[in-house]
Amino acid sequence: MENQIDMKALFSLSYGMYIVSTASEGKLNGQIANAVMQITADPIHITTCLNKENMTCGMIQKSGFFGISVLELDVPMTFLGLFGFKSGRDIDKFADTKYIMGPTGAPLVTDWTLSVFDAKVTNTIELPTHILFVGEIVSASSIKDAKPLTYADYHLVKKGKSPKTAPTFGFNALK
Amino acid sequence: MENQIDMKALFSLSYGMYIVSTASEGKLNGQIANAVMQITADPIHITTCLNKENMTCGMIQKSGFFGISVLELDVPMTFLGLFGFKSGRDIDKFADTKYIMGPTGAPLVTDWTLSVFDAKVTNTIELPTHILFVGEIVSASSIKDAKPLTYADYHLVKKGKSPKTAPTFGFNALK
Repeated sequence: MENQIDMKALFSLSYGMYIVSTASEGKLNGQIANAVMQITADPIHITTCLNKENMTCGMIQKSGFFGISVLELDVPMTFLGLFGFKSGRDIDKFADTKYIMGPTGAPLVTDWTLSVFDAKVTNTIELPTHILFVGEIVSASSIKDAKPLTYADYHLVKKGKSPKTAPTFGFNALK
Repeated sequence: MENQIDMKALFSLSYGMYIVSTASEGKLNGQIANAVMQITADPIHITTCLNKENMTCGMIQKSGFFGISVLELDVPMTFLGLFGFKSGRDIDKFADTKYIMGPTGAPLVTDWTLSVFDAKVTNTIELPTHILFVGEIVSASSIKDAKPLTYADYHLVKKGKSPKTAPTFGFNALK
């Protein structure tokens, strides 16, 4: 087998769509991410991976905690745009957003959300463009019963794009 | 918000279903995993997380490389059982399985598979029960055009169970 990379092959991986949030120096912030998964069951660890250029990434490095909101299928593109294509450097993403405070101090977005949890960072890996965060779950709550938005739905149903800082940048070009 | 953990909240995360494979000391082996994702785009890194009790985990620690096969929706339960509920310590999982050799040396299963890729391990994190592997992609190929099997499909459509070594053990009890 040859040493070639067919990007279409990588886009067959399945993901949900999430808001990853944190708080640092009195500021609340968060971003859309697809790279979130549970990796151990006892104790429960989850992982996410964020681009170093994104404000949320640097804030989690400072705070040492993060929240996750699992987005529902019916979430409107305007809401995804607020958290996915705007920067907390320019606007307060939480000004008109419903959220609850997790025990870690992370603001957990509850708009268009199936469930929320928050975690304390236990390990990090610095990659060339991104930081991978591993955290131990501190709290987890169900918010509503509905279908989750998958990354495939986002591209195929909602015709969504990926910003250049996404781990899977280029996905929309091939779907 | 209280410091409680509702497991149902964690089960709203979305995953695909994969075979993670490797080769070490002349032996080919692999296992079913749901915890696989792409985490960077340039260069391309992926991550997976395997239980230390599973033979594949120890073999990747020795070999330093792993392959991923993205399973299709139509994969039969007998095939999932072979890779998910049997151990390479007892049987040769590759004896009657179609595969190609990736450039790293990982055997890439092509039965019931949408796409395959292989990666060299660049980073690991040791957690209490699991090892998280981060690898840089060496090759990626599309095998067939079909729907991927998601973890939700596995539980809801196929009525599949999770072994006790799964990161998401307990999932089937609540679905």
